Amino acid sequence: MSGIEELAIRLRASLGHERVVTDRQELRTYECDGLAHYKVVPALVALPQNTAQVAEVVRACADAGVPFVARGSGTGLSGGALPHADGVLIVTAQMRAIRSISPEDERAVVEPGVINLQVTRAATPHGYYYAPDPSSQQICSIGGNVAENSGGAHCLKYGFTTNHVTGLEVVTPDGAITRLGGRAPDAPGYDLLGAFVGSEGTLGVATEVTVRLTRLPESVRTLLAAFRGTDEAGAATSAIIGAGVVPAAIEMMDALAIEAAEAAVACGYPAGAGAVLIVELDGPSAEVAAQFDEVNRLCEANGAFEIRIAADDAERALFWKGRKSAFAAVGRISPDYIVQDGVIPRTALPEVLRRIDELAAAHGVRVANVFHAGDGNLHPLVLFDDAVEGQAERAEEASGAIIDLCIEYGGSITGEHGVGADKAKYMPRMFTDDDLDTMQLVRCAFDPAGIANPGKIFPTPRLCGERPGRHRGAVEYEGAEVF
Amino acid sequence: MSGIEELAIRLRASLGHERVVTDRQELRTYECDGLAHYKVVPALVALPQNTAQVAEVVRACADAGVPFVARGSGTGLSGGALPHADGVLIVTAQMRAIRSISPEDERAVVEPGVINLQVTRAATPHGYYYAPDPSSQQICSIGGNVAENSGGAHCLKYGFTTNHVTGLEVVTPDGAITRLGGRAPDAPGYDLLGAFVGSEGTLGVATEVTVRLTRLPESVRTLLAAFRGTDEAGAATSAIIGAGVVPAAIEMMDALAIEAAEAAVACGYPAGAGAVLIVELDGPSAEVAAQFDEVNRLCEANGAFEIRIAADDAERALFWKGRKSAFAAVGRISPDYIVQDGVIPRTALPEVLRRIDELAAAHGVRVANVFHAGDGNLHPLVLFDDAVEGQAERAEEASGAIIDLCIEYGGSITGEHGVGADKAKYMPRMFTDDDLDTMQLVRCAFDPAGIANPGKIFPTPRLCGERPGRHRGAVEYEGAEVF
Repeated sequence: MSGIEELAIRLRASLGHERVVTDRQELRTYECDGLAHYKVVPALVALPQNTAQVAEVVRACADAGVPFVARGSGTGLSGGALPHADGVLIVTAQMRAIRSISPEDERAVVEPGVINLQVTRAATPHGYYYAPDPSSQQICSIGGNVAENSGGAHCLKYGFTTNHVTGLEVVTPDGAITRLGGRAPDAPGYDLLGAFVGSEGTLGVATEVTVRLTRLPESVRTLLAAFRGTDEAGAATSAIIGAGVVPAAIEMMDALAIEAAEAAVACGYPAGAGAVLIVELDGPSAEVAAQFDEVNRLCEANGAFEIRIAADDAERALFWKGRKSAFAAVGRISPDYIVQDGVIPRTALPEVLRRIDELAAAHGVRVANVFHAGDGNLHPLVLFDDAVEGQAERAEEASGAIIDLCIEYGGSITGEHGVGADKAKYMPRMFTDDDLDTMQLVRCAFDPAGIANPGKIFPTPRLCGERPGRHRGAVEYEGAEVF
Repeated sequence: MSGIEELAIRLRASLGHERVVTDRQELRTYECDGLAHYKVVPALVALPQNTAQVAEVVRACADAGVPFVARGSGTGLSGGALPHADGVLIVTAQMRAIRSISPEDERAVVEPGVINLQVTRAATPHGYYYAPDPSSQQICSIGGNVAENSGGAHCLKYGFTTNHVTGLEVVTPDGAITRLGGRAPDAPGYDLLGAFVGSEGTLGVATEVTVRLTRLPESVRTLLAAFRGTDEAGAATSAIIGAGVVPAAIEMMDALAIEAAEAAVACGYPAGAGAVLIVELDGPSAEVAAQFDEVNRLCEANGAFEIRIAADDAERALFWKGRKSAFAAVGRISPDYIVQDGVIPRTALPEVLRRIDELAAAHGVRVANVFHAGDGNLHPLVLFDDAVEGQAERAEEASGAIIDLCIEYGGSITGEHGVGADKAKYMPRMFTDDDLDTMQLVRCAFDPAGIANPGKIFPTPRLCGERPGRHRGAVEYEGAEVF
């Protein structure tokens, strides 16, 4: 009997038969996450219902020396939840209880399978919401958000998942249950919460998440500004931030992204726009009103030829509809596409967008840009047709070249989608050996056997147990400064 | 020749004679930090001037198996910089360069010995300041702030040091130089920055700190509200926070603290006040004006018998003078005192303050309360006279009983002063063995030899190298939830 067969027997005994999947056809449902060009069928899928069952699965894996990967809704875009062919996939989607909503201390306690938007829905009657809003918020899980430290359009003002998680219950890779953080803004001892959030499942599995709730703003105002091109829209973005205004969101779409959105959802953006900005302000009414006038003025001063102001929630939703559907919408103008994710210094936006255009032309592909301009967090969509010989390869090359460009400009290889399986190869471009060694030491502290989501984040698998050959005394190093 | 003598020869050769102190009289200067009732004379003091020299000192310690403790200005209140009798004290006070102030991306890069207030002074001409403001900000160092994750009066709105440090260069306990974080809000890989900030020197020595600069607010308004007692002042605090206003600060002083402040600096607080609140709002003028009216109204509704509004900066400074001098001022009404630091849920403030009164009476000591009411972060000052037989012991007991009280109410053993040497014994009251094991694993990852500030934070020294006997499968545990 194979190790996996023995594991299946043990897990069926403790979790129940229906919570353990080994049928090949059923297993194929889980072969990839949102990054569909990597596919690996797991050896076994476990569907635990509570913390004790997650601990039982992890303990069984640890005893058998079998790797495990945790998965929420499977919407991630970096292959962070890509299964291991000889391993167990722990799907937390059935752990969906919202355990508490506490307006009095602005906290919610939820299970990892809870959908991002459900937290906001549960908090809204109390006058609160959950701020981090990935585009996939209608389907992505809080557990997955924790693993990837997910962002979203409104992270410019409100920060990423890591800024909104105050406590975790986690199962460590030896099957122990522990707590990191709590309800307070700070606690004694090491802050391991920050290290866990964004660790992409390599330090364990989150089984309960305490998040900060944010008060619904008194006022929200949204404008859509149309520009002739991305140069002007980029300059307007820099001018707004430079003026000390922190909008809730500044989103940019270029001509090709606008074309796709129009084709898909007929959002009716201004004709002739080479770029649009969606700028949203929220907060106390008095503040929003004053700053909104300034944003309006700065857009005009930087070449906006039409500015629309959302008169009500319906019009506001229409502005966002084009933006939020943009990723899917490119399917209307291209059979296949790659969603890239990288960060550049905001001030370099116009120049980098021009160079992306040149790169696309050189590779014979089209690139649509739709992104979080305020953060400098690019999401180039590299369009291609898999049916045309060689196009997929050229698209991959162009996509990789865009990441090279981000690094060249002092940026980062990922803004919010994570490293996952996809970008581990780029890590040595951003970090020195010493930097990566320090991360590996922590990984080994949590996971000496290397069974928690192996193959993700780190470019080179390495056994724990030995101190790495650190470059002691090397005073010269490449910094990992990013903007 | 002893190990320390050999170390002194090696360090004098590399750092220069005048940067290595071994004279017993000179060493006594460093025998304690701000928590003066623990005193240990170090075996050697090193005064490095740059990162390479810090690395050289740490490497020499690692080679010799000698413990080291880092120290900034030595103003800490938990004994975090208490020296080791057989170890090296690394004083970073001579690393005082502000390397850059960059308003364009709201960052400053400073050396660890830079004084907190100097960062604000350097940033002010650009329209910025450094938000975390410990009461000791005129003398405490940024490196020390990083070690202890220091807070201050304005952390209610702006967060602690950890929320304002975006990148560190650190020397790890094997003498390697590495970087954690950078200039960006987020970066790929593990976020070890959060774990390092507040690790009290047990993971290494920070040699360069990148901090976020905060834009000077357009408007600041401050009021002083006098109440008959702490019950009313506590209720007003809860009402303000409950109304969704986030003041920059809400500080409370009780009758004894007011008496001390009046004796010391004649701040002229309203006569007959059993408690005062200082509430400060900052931000855009329009927002501040609207919220200020509400705060005023809520203070009145909760029993304030006199409310003064600062007409200008001079009056504002006078309000704060009493508060900021309060710790030192108790010296006017008591020969000796202990500064305690604990956190409770804000809503429990009136009840806990009553119980502190009872505790004080039972121990035959007086307790003055002056604290960050908005955070529920208490700073009881336990007054005693060391010349009176038994009073010091009773004061110690009362001070410990206050921490027990914080834990009983679901709070925390430290709000902003750190665990240090002083509170390691309380850690098992807040954390389970599994929680502490997880922290120890990380400590061992950075410091397998256990030479970085040993004896701090953790209640029981333990050798690294073995996996701890974790309580695998134990689903029941004491949570470490704090408010």
